[in-house]
Amino acid sequence: MSGPIAFSLLGRDENTKARRGRLVLPHGTVETPVFMAVGTRGAVKALTIDQVHATGTEVVLGNTYHLALRPGAEVVRAAGGLHRFTGWTRNMLTDSGGFQVWSLATRGGRGGGDMAPPEVSEKGVRFRSHYDGSLLDLSPEKSIEIQNALGADVIMAFDECAPHPSPKEAVAAAVARTSLWAARSRGAHQRREEQALFGIVQGGVFLDLRDESATALRKVGFDGYAVGGLSVGEGPEQMARVLDHTCPRLPEEQPRYLMGVGTPIDICEAVSRGIDMFDCVLPTRNARNAQVFTWSGEQLKLRNARFREDFSPLDPLCSCATCKGGFTRAYLRHLFSVEEVTALTLATIHNLTFYQDFMGKMREALLQGQFASFLEKWRHLCRNGDSSPRETGDD
Amino acid sequence: MSGPIAFSLLGRDENTKARRGRLVLPHGTVETPVFMAVGTRGAVKALTIDQVHATGTEVVLGNTYHLALRPGAEVVRAAGGLHRFTGWTRNMLTDSGGFQVWSLATRGGRGGGDMAPPEVSEKGVRFRSHYDGSLLDLSPEKSIEIQNALGADVIMAFDECAPHPSPKEAVAAAVARTSLWAARSRGAHQRREEQALFGIVQGGVFLDLRDESATALRKVGFDGYAVGGLSVGEGPEQMARVLDHTCPRLPEEQPRYLMGVGTPIDICEAVSRGIDMFDCVLPTRNARNAQVFTWSGEQLKLRNARFREDFSPLDPLCSCATCKGGFTRAYLRHLFSVEEVTALTLATIHNLTFYQDFMGKMREALLQGQFASFLEKWRHLCRNGDSSPRETGDD
Repeated sequence: MSGPIAFSLLGRDENTKARRGRLVLPHGTVETPVFMAVGTRGAVKALTIDQVHATGTEVVLGNTYHLALRPGAEVVRAAGGLHRFTGWTRNMLTDSGGFQVWSLATRGGRGGGDMAPPEVSEKGVRFRSHYDGSLLDLSPEKSIEIQNALGADVIMAFDECAPHPSPKEAVAAAVARTSLWAARSRGAHQRREEQALFGIVQGGVFLDLRDESATALRKVGFDGYAVGGLSVGEGPEQMARVLDHTCPRLPEEQPRYLMGVGTPIDICEAVSRGIDMFDCVLPTRNARNAQVFTWSGEQLKLRNARFREDFSPLDPLCSCATCKGGFTRAYLRHLFSVEEVTALTLATIHNLTFYQDFMGKMREALLQGQFASFLEKWRHLCRNGDSSPRETGDD
Repeated sequence: MSGPIAFSLLGRDENTKARRGRLVLPHGTVETPVFMAVGTRGAVKALTIDQVHATGTEVVLGNTYHLALRPGAEVVRAAGGLHRFTGWTRNMLTDSGGFQVWSLATRGGRGGGDMAPPEVSEKGVRFRSHYDGSLLDLSPEKSIEIQNALGADVIMAFDECAPHPSPKEAVAAAVARTSLWAARSRGAHQRREEQALFGIVQGGVFLDLRDESATALRKVGFDGYAVGGLSVGEGPEQMARVLDHTCPRLPEEQPRYLMGVGTPIDICEAVSRGIDMFDCVLPTRNARNAQVFTWSGEQLKLRNARFREDFSPLDPLCSCATCKGGFTRAYLRHLFSVEEVTALTLATIHNLTFYQDFMGKMREALLQGQFASFLEKWRHLCRNGDSSPRETGDD
């Protein structure tokens, strides 16, 4: 392998555009389609590194915006990078911070409802910290400089994600800026032999803008291509339409990453359209809200009174440490009802393991030529499932 | 071993009243002096069972008052008892709830500052739930009935703990009631072959009342004897004075348990006076407040700016999973500063392991005939240490 990334396709589904692949990165081999766990601030919420590892997770995400504010890139650099700082020895990916600037500004920021929106220009974005209101500048150069300091295995170009819905002109302007910033991100990247750099296709639900964005990014040339600006409220039909259109316009031999998606069925549908990589706050955030995924397709709301004396595991089919450890629905209901932190840990272990096992079964189905029936099964199970709007930049 | 408990003394210190013992209980052997971890509501806060076990903890405490309110004794009984409900396979102890009724009432209860104080009579205590204000009765019979349902290996008589300071007449009345309730607790105990029952000596700082209480409890006859009503603000000198007086009045061949104590030096001092068993919220609560114990005697306040780029472990001499796992002071400072739950877990693992290792070294010193120098060393290290007021019934 020369450079920080090697991607090989091990197989393709006959009926859909789904791919079974393998990604070799500096901190290990990753089987695709892969689900990456969100660890925005340098930890997967409520879990230790050992617990994250035990879920089967191979890639953890950090976020440039959050880590630049706390503890600061210079602290992580002094620690020897994000792997050394957090203790995570497998692969990491950092998002560029573009999405967070916008989403945090849109909702006024945590504890900063009266903050001015960020000022965006060709140069970059000037915004106020959601921690203390201090003024910060983020630009393609600055984002990449920070990501070089953080040292993740995969880093992302600095992009502009227009909110949904936005008038076409606004989305077109964001695409133009994203294209410009993609080239500048590429130019600023100082550690090309150690860190793979992915570009991010924008364009909202406008297919011609998606074309324009994909073309511009391919001209710059990246180690992989992400689809951004989805799962922001456009709904599953629009997401499918955009992916149907966009995936064929991305290089066949390189990995494709759908950012911030999604529910199990969202992921299935995107894989069927040719996506290889995913991240989402859903398994971890839902766990902390006492909602756990099951193989029946139902999400259990553990605070419900019906679990009061339900001494069965969260899911009898689940392989996670919580289910195998004898912890019952009644016990978790109790821990949630008295607000014990241990509840967050046990539920997060379950949901993240569920996601990783779900991806594992999907990869197995792909290798066995049974992806179509896997997809049909989950379409059936999740008929009443929700989509997963990526409303905030938080996890 | 006949019955639920066997206690043997393995050695005595030549210079003090310290004892090295072994307690055989239904769920395993416990070396004494022992520190028992507090798990009030059926979980040691922020830890999973595996993590508690890895700290070297052998006994976990539950609380009758809290568990009777949530999830309710009948739920735990239906689960097959507290061990089955929580997944903890080693020994458990339940406090009777007497202390919590008083301490929660004193501070008005969580979210119930305007609640009426509990009504106490010979019959028992009538109080309002700190969860929802509903009316509940607790009596010796009711407490023991609940503790029989919970099924811990060691259960406690229902006592009355007078606040400190109280006029002597008030403490005398509490002692009289505690003596009466001790006999009724003993009479109500339905599972004598499976659960050891300890009496609780009260009497505040009045030595003649301690005499009266100890004599009354010995007349009833228990499997072990606890000293209650200390570490409630009386200070280390008074605690030492009461223990010097009370320990010789308890049966030599049975275990002695000092409730709610304390700092490392508090524990040393109490061991030197003949105490065998301890519990305290200090290691777990301090961990959640970002304060960690070290072998230098200093407690580190991890939020302090001086740890910003301190990439050393919490304590280089510590054997815990946090210190051995490469997690640094800088990393924990960061996690606390951004309020990541994982911080609570990592710090709690450290503090609880510190306490268990501390007890292990103390037991080793006792066997080697070096307890006096161990005590001197910790007196020196902790000269500026605080005592540990057991202000609340919460953990």
